[in-house]
Amino acid sequence: MARNRVTNFLDPCGYILDILGDQNKVAVPDPVYPVYVDTNVMAGHTGPGGKDGSYEGLRYLPCTAENNFVPEPPKEHVDLVYLCFPNNPTGAVASRAQLSHWVAYAREHDALLLFDAAYEAYISDPEIPHSIFEVPGARECAIEFRSFSKNGGFTGVRCGFTVVTKSVLAQTENGRRLPLHPLWQRRWSTKSNGVSYPVQRGAEALYSQEGRKQVRVLIDHYMGNAKLLRDAVVDAGLKPFGGVNAPYIWVKTPDGLTSWEMFDRMLRELNVVITPGAGFGAQGEGHFRISAFNSRENAEEVAGRLRGLHQ
Amino acid sequence: MARNRVTNFLDPCGYILDILGDQNKVAVPDPVYPVYVDTNVMAGHTGPGGKDGSYEGLRYLPCTAENNFVPEPPKEHVDLVYLCFPNNPTGAVASRAQLSHWVAYAREHDALLLFDAAYEAYISDPEIPHSIFEVPGARECAIEFRSFSKNGGFTGVRCGFTVVTKSVLAQTENGRRLPLHPLWQRRWSTKSNGVSYPVQRGAEALYSQEGRKQVRVLIDHYMGNAKLLRDAVVDAGLKPFGGVNAPYIWVKTPDGLTSWEMFDRMLRELNVVITPGAGFGAQGEGHFRISAFNSRENAEEVAGRLRGLHQ
Repeated sequence: MARNRVTNFLDPCGYILDILGDQNKVAVPDPVYPVYVDTNVMAGHTGPGGKDGSYEGLRYLPCTAENNFVPEPPKEHVDLVYLCFPNNPTGAVASRAQLSHWVAYAREHDALLLFDAAYEAYISDPEIPHSIFEVPGARECAIEFRSFSKNGGFTGVRCGFTVVTKSVLAQTENGRRLPLHPLWQRRWSTKSNGVSYPVQRGAEALYSQEGRKQVRVLIDHYMGNAKLLRDAVVDAGLKPFGGVNAPYIWVKTPDGLTSWEMFDRMLRELNVVITPGAGFGAQGEGHFRISAFNSRENAEEVAGRLRGLHQ
Repeated sequence: MARNRVTNFLDPCGYILDILGDQNKVAVPDPVYPVYVDTNVMAGHTGPGGKDGSYEGLRYLPCTAENNFVPEPPKEHVDLVYLCFPNNPTGAVASRAQLSHWVAYAREHDALLLFDAAYEAYISDPEIPHSIFEVPGARECAIEFRSFSKNGGFTGVRCGFTVVTKSVLAQTENGRRLPLHPLWQRRWSTKSNGVSYPVQRGAEALYSQEGRKQVRVLIDHYMGNAKLLRDAVVDAGLKPFGGVNAPYIWVKTPDGLTSWEMFDRMLRELNVVITPGAGFGAQGEGHFRISAFNSRENAEEVAGRLRGLHQ
């Protein structure tokens, strides 16, 4: 079991359930960043887990090569939808049209979109929205999560923020429609009063001219790694996804290997650790994730070893 | 409503409910630090609130001058008990014998004690336990919350810790007894991965020789304020409680004033802000809290003004 889990880092996504009810029908992409699923499991919103890592009661939205790893809204009603673009783990991005479909769905079904934009800084294609709020109508149906972990390299300092507009409403058990903003405010003021003060000053510095410049250099560095690694995957005869507007490269395993078999092979043959796709859900099986978060030296070394992978 | 709330600061107490069920019978002292009550209200563990600030479904344990503000265990069964000694807001401390009664109760009733020791550094009486774990048997029935807010002056940096022994068990819905430690570990590793790294280094420094010395100086400073303020309360002809092994002085309002009437009177006559007791629960009515967390200059000024309070 422990082997099937991918380690997670801080995300305000983990706390949003504190202000939402227990009876919501929840949709999650598959594969998916595990926090969305795990926090629902921990809150008792799901049934038992299956052998493939999926849980009863959740509506999984398969993300596959066929849909470019961007799921369409389901036919049936759901109350909550987790979306993350650029995506962890697949590195996929959603177009304006695709996000518009989701906003239209949410407005029609009175659903709430929980949009994780942690990797927005990695988008280079000017056509790709950086925020769900670039789509008209999203202010009434979406909450957006932002992180400093990935742009400022702030992993481990526990700082992020959540955009809850004053126009996003939710329904109480007896049918009243109320704004979520005061509930979220109350949740934070009662349980923690927010982010550590010295850390907030660090986050503030990211918005200075010098801070913006440093962030840009850091992003360019990681995206340089992503290009090196993606090219090496191609040279190794494997099929990569993502890695262009996202720091993750999602790769199909060769020879029908499971993702953990591929993990073992990469470890033994190349002495390189990758993340097995099965840790991100049932649809992650048969894939693995390569992360661009590393030094250039390490990325180059891994790229070279990848080219030597025995086919 | 807003006026009846006392502002709270961070406490791991606010998160412990994440790993406990919804059906527990919860006992809280009255008056009480509001986070214990509020987090239960927010989790839907109570019924509606009454005009006096109390909520249906909670078992309130009155803390009054008659019991020296240390409640005895109830006759009936409860599952969870919040205790805080030295106490906020009353400044009361619990003796070893009193804590032993609670541990005996918890073991007999299979109850869990949630012991908030945030103010332990303020204890000067060598007979008073600093930790619930000084009482034999507590390792099987208690969780202790510790804070750096009050010893290191760490308010606002979001750092504390929780002592969950590996021998403290809880019962699942179908009657299995399981340790809470792995659940708590999982809760933190999934939702936040713990305290911001730079802040942890600050906390570490509190345990250095120099850090311990600075903490001692800080505590002595605040307790010097407490003595000044307590003496001034007596000179003003009012009845103080606490303020000897705790940084809070709990004062009975004169002339049958409500705590908010006293707030207004102190504000108008002395231009001094105190905390009205009603904000801490129904039993807090008719009392107010004076905090020793201030500069010496301010404490001396307030002490002088208190002596001029018109009786």
